[in-house]
Amino acid sequence: MRIRVEQLNPIVGDLNGNREKIIASLRKAEKDGVRLLILPELVTCGYAPMDLLERQAFLDAVYTSNRQIVEDVSGRTALLFGTVTPNTEGNGRKIFNSAILADGGEIVSVTHKTLLPTYDIFDEFRYFEPNRTFALTRLDGLPIGITICEDIWNHQNEIVYHTYDVNPARELKLLGAKILVNISASPFSKSKYELRESMLRNHARREDIPVFYANQTGANTEVIFDGDSMIMNAAGDVIERTASFEEDFADADLIDGQPVAVTGKIGRAMPLEEKLFRAIVLGVRDYVTKTTISEKVLIGLSGGIDSALTAVIAVEALGPENVIGVTMPSEFSSEGSVTDSIKLAENLGMEVREMPISPIYDTINTVLEPVFKGTEFGVAEENIQSRARGILLMAMSNKFGYMLLNTGNKSEMAVGYCTLYGDMAGGLSVLSDIYKTEVFAISNWLNDIYFKKEVIPQSTITKPPSAELRPDQKDTDSLPEYEVLDRILKSYIEDQKSAREIVREGFDADTVKRVIRLVDLNEYKRRQAAPGLRASAKAFGIGRRLP
Amino acid sequence: MRIRVEQLNPIVGDLNGNREKIIASLRKAEKDGVRLLILPELVTCGYAPMDLLERQAFLDAVYTSNRQIVEDVSGRTALLFGTVTPNTEGNGRKIFNSAILADGGEIVSVTHKTLLPTYDIFDEFRYFEPNRTFALTRLDGLPIGITICEDIWNHQNEIVYHTYDVNPARELKLLGAKILVNISASPFSKSKYELRESMLRNHARREDIPVFYANQTGANTEVIFDGDSMIMNAAGDVIERTASFEEDFADADLIDGQPVAVTGKIGRAMPLEEKLFRAIVLGVRDYVTKTTISEKVLIGLSGGIDSALTAVIAVEALGPENVIGVTMPSEFSSEGSVTDSIKLAENLGMEVREMPISPIYDTINTVLEPVFKGTEFGVAEENIQSRARGILLMAMSNKFGYMLLNTGNKSEMAVGYCTLYGDMAGGLSVLSDIYKTEVFAISNWLNDIYFKKEVIPQSTITKPPSAELRPDQKDTDSLPEYEVLDRILKSYIEDQKSAREIVREGFDADTVKRVIRLVDLNEYKRRQAAPGLRASAKAFGIGRRLP
Repeated sequence: MRIRVEQLNPIVGDLNGNREKIIASLRKAEKDGVRLLILPELVTCGYAPMDLLERQAFLDAVYTSNRQIVEDVSGRTALLFGTVTPNTEGNGRKIFNSAILADGGEIVSVTHKTLLPTYDIFDEFRYFEPNRTFALTRLDGLPIGITICEDIWNHQNEIVYHTYDVNPARELKLLGAKILVNISASPFSKSKYELRESMLRNHARREDIPVFYANQTGANTEVIFDGDSMIMNAAGDVIERTASFEEDFADADLIDGQPVAVTGKIGRAMPLEEKLFRAIVLGVRDYVTKTTISEKVLIGLSGGIDSALTAVIAVEALGPENVIGVTMPSEFSSEGSVTDSIKLAENLGMEVREMPISPIYDTINTVLEPVFKGTEFGVAEENIQSRARGILLMAMSNKFGYMLLNTGNKSEMAVGYCTLYGDMAGGLSVLSDIYKTEVFAISNWLNDIYFKKEVIPQSTITKPPSAELRPDQKDTDSLPEYEVLDRILKSYIEDQKSAREIVREGFDADTVKRVIRLVDLNEYKRRQAAPGLRASAKAFGIGRRLP
Repeated sequence: MRIRVEQLNPIVGDLNGNREKIIASLRKAEKDGVRLLILPELVTCGYAPMDLLERQAFLDAVYTSNRQIVEDVSGRTALLFGTVTPNTEGNGRKIFNSAILADGGEIVSVTHKTLLPTYDIFDEFRYFEPNRTFALTRLDGLPIGITICEDIWNHQNEIVYHTYDVNPARELKLLGAKILVNISASPFSKSKYELRESMLRNHARREDIPVFYANQTGANTEVIFDGDSMIMNAAGDVIERTASFEEDFADADLIDGQPVAVTGKIGRAMPLEEKLFRAIVLGVRDYVTKTTISEKVLIGLSGGIDSALTAVIAVEALGPENVIGVTMPSEFSSEGSVTDSIKLAENLGMEVREMPISPIYDTINTVLEPVFKGTEFGVAEENIQSRARGILLMAMSNKFGYMLLNTGNKSEMAVGYCTLYGDMAGGLSVLSDIYKTEVFAISNWLNDIYFKKEVIPQSTITKPPSAELRPDQKDTDSLPEYEVLDRILKSYIEDQKSAREIVREGFDADTVKRVIRLVDLNEYKRRQAAPGLRASAKAFGIGRRLP
């Protein structure tokens, strides 16, 4: 029996487009002699449909789509796909998160998800009724144990938020499953590639069973899915593995109960810098193309490393013809702010425009003079500059329909070293889950390894980071060195450690307290930030909810 | 036995302040001869603590607070209070949402919440492990059935999102409960006052049992708690009822198993306009005072009805000395934009300043001229005006530490008739859950009934709504009449009806489609909006989650 795991990139809510994608995969699998095609979780409606699931008209449309797909499974390939099905038993929530196995135009089985993730970015208990009983599915006599995403993330060493009473994989093995299938919408984060493999290996070995794992790929607003689907034998060896960050499939023949590689795909483990770069490129591409607001994006180029990296990412995602840079010097800007921006744009082959903000800044100061008279230059004046740039960028965005990309990094967003309605403006925050030290690492990797030439000007990388909003300003005037700051931030935000625990790791107590205070205090800014692409286990945005 | 239900206004995360409040209530109850004092759900940490509940250091501090409170219950009054307790049984989430009954310095019982709301603004499955078994609590031999908030919102006629398998009130009655207690953090919405009473009456009559209901009051960011605590006999009559929107208590003596009124408080049903007004006033006051960023707020006064109502609310909440208005006319502003703003400020006794935006608008246009040459006046130019105002207001906010209040209403926010980083700027959105027709109704009620004089200038109320961003602009140039618009919006947003269902209610099909398209399209603007005070069953913000 030839089995294929395939990762697709559905669009949330685009039921017709997703169905066409599913049917195209099915037809290809039929042609390739595949007996069982396994597609990801909620592939009919994309992940996560969020409150669309509360609209009866949307649910009815999903059910119609399910029926049409099942009818189309008329050839020799059976199809297992993730979708929403109704809870017809009366009590509880109205829907299940399900896997339908279809064969010969009929439904063979419907399996519901047991463990519903409700932490970080996940809200599944908000919508779905959990499964409570287990049963095997049979295809050509083969007993298959079907699980959905979280169902297999249930062991002490793989969980963060809580443990579960039930282990669906174990239940299905006890019932006699000969292969374990998992369909997922498991998002990318920095360490997921390794974690996912070790988690699947634990199951394979503990239950002595081959594992077929089909994950989603593509990005939906904040959340990026890498894919990384794979087939593993009962010894825990990866037999086949798809490429990451793109649609792909992997096949194995089941011979004497064990999977044997067909295509010889083995995936590729990437260095962290490459992972982050490819993830964010995919995030930008999918956000821009899926929202269909505009093909072109706009970036304010400061001559600094954040906007430079954002420009490289945008050009990689959309092509240089779709990226427009604007450099907006003020009286406090260094010379490099314009020259480095122009050099970068030349290296990337993208357009760049120059607009000075000094006349605007001066006019605003004149209007405010009666009120500000006698006060000293301070944050208000700094923010006026940042917001004048925001106005120019948004005016161009409104006039020509370009989407403005925000260039702020996670370190800045964390401590509020950014201006609401100024440099925080934009439709998508590209780097808001990438620490400043990671911005440097990715930029160096791009020049040294990926491009093998100086695409990001070396002077952009080596100059000390500065907002250039007052004379001779440096980020380190008001912040610790980024090497220190980023490690404190990671401990506080991602590892949820207390001040006391972080100090115990060897940091200065006053610095730790000051950083934590800044993070807490600036929650109000982040509440109004653009959606940001998620790259870590704890990003700002929908997965981090603070009062 | 004298029993008191008391509504307190805790601050989220302020464990020490909340504990002092609790102990002060306890001491007063002791003095008043109360045997059992019942305080609201999660009164130790405020509702909702959100992801603070994921921090072990925060949980440890709550447990310490619990112990201190129990030790302080040393007099003749027993205390029932809502708090977080640890799940020590191993599997599942790490904590429970609990009610601790303390008497004589000891814990009498700990009851966990069974039904965990996970819809709209509620995320309880994200944090809490549900209770699965039921037991009575006894005080002086009286068998008490203790429930927590959602535990009693479990019947077909009271639910929206789903039904529950379990009815905790029934379980407790079957065990022999003689009174039913519910401690809540049940938020205000337009129809909650009536709904809450009928829900409690259903339980009282069905189970033939008196009901003691203690709810939270006060506001925490978006969410406003009205309080509305009450004591009901087994016939479903309200015996005592607290005031709404403030801290208050109500007492009854339990005689022959039925509650008998002590203080004679019966609450007061308010007209809708008053409810909304008082709710929003409380929301503004608590947001400003609890965040302690500033005592003073700033409002851009346009001469229109939204900013006028916002100013009245702010003055009512904080006093005229803490509210500063700014009028910022442009070449497209009507004469009334300044004169009505000044008249309003005079009526309210608040300060108002005038700053023209024309010089800024002109300078920005000059800077953009090389890029915009040959294009027509459009949304870009309109937004520049709105953002120039935003810059001035934010500059004053930054300079003097005033918190900027946003004045946009729900109708505008719904269809995107507002400018990101312009009139959408601000720390709190005061009217973002109040439809335009409600803005008119509240304004008329204020002048006619509440103030009994023209506080909001009549010309502000009667002039046709306009953004005044181009010559002779009216809202109805691009939107349906607000009477029609608001009814379509309510059907779509609050009742979650489909376009087809709304058309069937008698609206023009093209209008309905256009309005729904605008609502969907402008999700991106709302994602970056300031937190908005919740007044309806479905507000924009944390309770509405769309891709």
